[in-house]
Amino acid sequence: MNFRLVCKFLSIVSLLIGITMTFSLPWAFPALGHRTSEAAIGFETAGFQALVVSIGVCFVCWAGLSYYARSAKGELFRKEAMAVVGLSWVLATVLGGLPFVLSGASRSLSVRLFDSPDHPPQVFNENVEPITKLQYRLVKILVDAQAVGVSPEQLTSADEGDKLIEAFDELKEKPEWTDALIAPEEEPAPGDRYYHYRIRPIKMNIADALFESQSGFSTTGATVIANLEDPVLVPHCILFWRSSTHLLGGLGIIVLFVVVLGQGSAGKALMHNEMPGPSKEGAHSRMQQTAWYFTAIYLALNAVLTVILWLLGMTFFDALCHAFGTMATGGFSTFNDSLGHFYKADPYTGFWIEYVVIVFMVLAGMNFMLLYFLVVKRRLIALWKDVEWRTYMAVLGGATALVIAFGMSYGDFKSHADQSVWSEASDALRCGLFQVVSIMTTTGFGTHDFDQWNSFGRGILFLLMFVGGCAGSTGGGLKVIRHILFHKILYLQIEKAYHPTVIRPLRLGGKPVDDPDLQQNILVYFGLILVLFVFSWMAIITLEPDATWGVSEVHIEHKLIDSATSVAATLNNIGPGLGVIGATQNYANFTWWTKMLFVWLMMLGRLEIFAVAVLFIPSFWRSR
Amino acid sequence: MNFRLVCKFLSIVSLLIGITMTFSLPWAFPALGHRTSEAAIGFETAGFQALVVSIGVCFVCWAGLSYYARSAKGELFRKEAMAVVGLSWVLATVLGGLPFVLSGASRSLSVRLFDSPDHPPQVFNENVEPITKLQYRLVKILVDAQAVGVSPEQLTSADEGDKLIEAFDELKEKPEWTDALIAPEEEPAPGDRYYHYRIRPIKMNIADALFESQSGFSTTGATVIANLEDPVLVPHCILFWRSSTHLLGGLGIIVLFVVVLGQGSAGKALMHNEMPGPSKEGAHSRMQQTAWYFTAIYLALNAVLTVILWLLGMTFFDALCHAFGTMATGGFSTFNDSLGHFYKADPYTGFWIEYVVIVFMVLAGMNFMLLYFLVVKRRLIALWKDVEWRTYMAVLGGATALVIAFGMSYGDFKSHADQSVWSEASDALRCGLFQVVSIMTTTGFGTHDFDQWNSFGRGILFLLMFVGGCAGSTGGGLKVIRHILFHKILYLQIEKAYHPTVIRPLRLGGKPVDDPDLQQNILVYFGLILVLFVFSWMAIITLEPDATWGVSEVHIEHKLIDSATSVAATLNNIGPGLGVIGATQNYANFTWWTKMLFVWLMMLGRLEIFAVAVLFIPSFWRSR
Repeated sequence: MNFRLVCKFLSIVSLLIGITMTFSLPWAFPALGHRTSEAAIGFETAGFQALVVSIGVCFVCWAGLSYYARSAKGELFRKEAMAVVGLSWVLATVLGGLPFVLSGASRSLSVRLFDSPDHPPQVFNENVEPITKLQYRLVKILVDAQAVGVSPEQLTSADEGDKLIEAFDELKEKPEWTDALIAPEEEPAPGDRYYHYRIRPIKMNIADALFESQSGFSTTGATVIANLEDPVLVPHCILFWRSSTHLLGGLGIIVLFVVVLGQGSAGKALMHNEMPGPSKEGAHSRMQQTAWYFTAIYLALNAVLTVILWLLGMTFFDALCHAFGTMATGGFSTFNDSLGHFYKADPYTGFWIEYVVIVFMVLAGMNFMLLYFLVVKRRLIALWKDVEWRTYMAVLGGATALVIAFGMSYGDFKSHADQSVWSEASDALRCGLFQVVSIMTTTGFGTHDFDQWNSFGRGILFLLMFVGGCAGSTGGGLKVIRHILFHKILYLQIEKAYHPTVIRPLRLGGKPVDDPDLQQNILVYFGLILVLFVFSWMAIITLEPDATWGVSEVHIEHKLIDSATSVAATLNNIGPGLGVIGATQNYANFTWWTKMLFVWLMMLGRLEIFAVAVLFIPSFWRSR
Repeated sequence: MNFRLVCKFLSIVSLLIGITMTFSLPWAFPALGHRTSEAAIGFETAGFQALVVSIGVCFVCWAGLSYYARSAKGELFRKEAMAVVGLSWVLATVLGGLPFVLSGASRSLSVRLFDSPDHPPQVFNENVEPITKLQYRLVKILVDAQAVGVSPEQLTSADEGDKLIEAFDELKEKPEWTDALIAPEEEPAPGDRYYHYRIRPIKMNIADALFESQSGFSTTGATVIANLEDPVLVPHCILFWRSSTHLLGGLGIIVLFVVVLGQGSAGKALMHNEMPGPSKEGAHSRMQQTAWYFTAIYLALNAVLTVILWLLGMTFFDALCHAFGTMATGGFSTFNDSLGHFYKADPYTGFWIEYVVIVFMVLAGMNFMLLYFLVVKRRLIALWKDVEWRTYMAVLGGATALVIAFGMSYGDFKSHADQSVWSEASDALRCGLFQVVSIMTTTGFGTHDFDQWNSFGRGILFLLMFVGGCAGSTGGGLKVIRHILFHKILYLQIEKAYHPTVIRPLRLGGKPVDDPDLQQNILVYFGLILVLFVFSWMAIITLEPDATWGVSEVHIEHKLIDSATSVAATLNNIGPGLGVIGATQNYANFTWWTKMLFVWLMMLGRLEIFAVAVLFIPSFWRSR
């Protein structure tokens, strides 16, 4: 193992992260950073300082690694390339997580309420004794007020206001509630909320930060942050960094992974067949050229989408963040309602925002080599000739049609009782198409609470999680090409069972695929995903306490299916799943060890297992 | 394709089925057939006639096929062997289903009630209008009385008896209820129940009969019959035939499949390694000898278990039926509570019955070659040397320990509040061990409603369904040896990812496995099971109406997980799953097309896919 050479590449990664982080700094200034809809909060000191320190750490890493690697020489063989890719993600995750911890960003409120007053709340994720109806009302007011809280005047002006203050004092004396409730302070302090009755927010710990960072770099888009809209809980500059990790992650995938590693078996098959350019053994200069082309297309698409979203009425901040989330097939939003926020705020522009994002998600899930043909060579026919693209579009179309048909027959898209059929159909098309595209391309934006859909709709979304985008895209999942090859291989094998002597070659788009290892590789990859899925699922149902599902029997019964979707959503880099991690939920309530498992799954899924798995095999490091 | 030769074997199968069916005839006579606990019902005319006609059909088939195959000659090549195995099962399923349809056996009552009076009942599987509380009470009395119904005197003597009779008349006038309710007849007729108020039972249709027959021959043990204990609904002789299909199915597996086909890839690997006897290319006489040995061991074990169960207080009828169900790893019982009936009836003998059945289930899940070594050669060390057997026992032990530990921490095994810890631990060991062994060996008997267990317990049972017994046993599932090889192959492949030049042989029990196709075969088999599982699951959530899950929102929400377990339970030949097909439930309420899908899945699972799948490839029949 040429470790110095690996470190040279890692130093570049550190530098790149440090430089990208500086672009988050300006958003700490009120003039630039704040969304127009919000009251001025002032300069975001904590966020700014955290970013500055993190940038410092990045540069120290860069300097240290560069110094160590100063005498590095030799060529990047397959083994070193794998180490570079695997360790880059580890390094990026750690560095990228620093701003979250250092800024003291908050994950969620420490009190969790459930649908019905009959169910006692949870405090710091622990079940507590039932509380009185009055106490429940008080806690509900405080929870609804989020981190801002309510002033004593607001509280007393409510029904039975005096009793509510009494209830606050009673609760505050209970040991399990003491830390969770904050009484108004007497001394002056910046910001109104210090004079308010509040519920304490929980700060992000190391597991939360690593989760959020990995989720960004792996372009998953799963989040542990329950409230994104309050700048005191999560400053704008931190939120911008969070979305920037998508930009970097997506770039990392298409450059490092697609170009350097040839993206495993699926990529190889495709490259042999479709690409006149870089093959695995291709010339070094050609690889570099392709990497630059890809980078340019990726950044250009990000820029175009940003401008369109900006013109459609988003703030520049939101437009950038959502463009990053879309083109990386990530899914981090800056609103709690995800992309659905814009339709709720203004149906007219929201409608167009959703369709624009659909188009760009579809583009992001396509092979970048095809985009290259389209953009650089202007060869539209290349699309149609590509069997993976045809299948990708067919699956998107078919799944959308089924989801709409079933959803309408169950009335899932009906917003009110006397809605006309045409209006319902229009909503069904918009929401159904958006959700299918969002899940299959592994973006994970939400515009509609698909957890309320019928079983069929939810089931098909679950299965689409495993399909994913095309090879050579920023999308995750198993990739369309692997599914095509998988089914072809299985059919050939059944045929072989009664005709053992006839050997038929595997064909793709009419041409035989001559890589002898390909069949084995595809099967092994499916096998590994299966094993990872099953063992992770078992680990979660074993280790995760029922309390994560709240206190109602009905929700705990969903532990099996919710856990399965949480594994699927992280391993395939989607983001949301069903139930407790559904469209309107988040990963905040999982225990830290399960979050670390998710971090691991997101990385394995993103790097297609091998580049991560080998890091844990001792002989990988020892042997040359 | 040497079709005449295939038909020769099929004629033998017809003959064997016809002969076995005759053994069910005696149980139609009151003196022999009736369980001592029941009131005399008289001679079971319908069942007897149905069996006689079915036997006739079997002999006609035998004669016809023999005549067609009279000039058959040549050797049984692999292709013909596959056709024999696949078509045998198809033929057996059809012939074996005849008695169920012809005898007019009943599947379930036409009215289905749910936990709470708030939920309206279903009539003939259709949701109906809500009914009044009084009407609900009446229907509940009738449903609880099962097919016997209640006499007018019993009804009038109940609280508000006159009103109940009024309620009956009211309901009877509603069109959806007319066919479901039966008023007392005036004319004399045999049996008391004709003078009773009753709910009409639904007769088994063709899909039900094929399901029950396939479930028997494939040793699955899933049933559509909701009430096994009423001889008018299902006569004893038909019940005996139902259990006999297990005996034949188990015999078919170990003789036809294990010996003739070498049981696919897993069997081959095992045979190469462990068996001094018949290899795939082995001498014909040796194969025949092994087949006879296996048959003898199988029948002897059935006989021994029957005697033990008889001595433990079962009737001879029940002892035979449960022995058939155990040794074939089938799981058909003659009681609604499955094997749990005996513990409920008498905890002392029930306790021993359960442990005896555990031991025999473990034996039935072992490779018959090992049993042969034990019984014939008396080589105990062969057990320990066998890596599959060690893994099989380790998984059984580990899963049991986990299920007991989690179950006790959730109090799942607590029968009453002031139960001592020792008594609870004893129950936990008995129920936990039984259920783990029953599911993993794919028997599917139940002694405890595991659907009430915690999520972890239910999750682990779901996973165990895919493990199954050892190769060369009557157990279904993927087989332990395949899992061992699967994990070894995946590990080798990860190693290969960074060391493409080093080729390490696959080893099993210290010896290298030299079959070059084995790796591919194992991976393909896992792939096929995965594809079958996913597509069948999707088909069920698409095609099966929500009404199957009843009328409560809570249960419908379980559609996804219940459907998944129903596919797992049939594809792996287990029997019960979770939720709507849980330990205390059955498959009666599924629609006929889903039942046919299950028939297909049971056969695919039993014959390890290939022997069935090839039947549907046209070129299999055309080519030589």
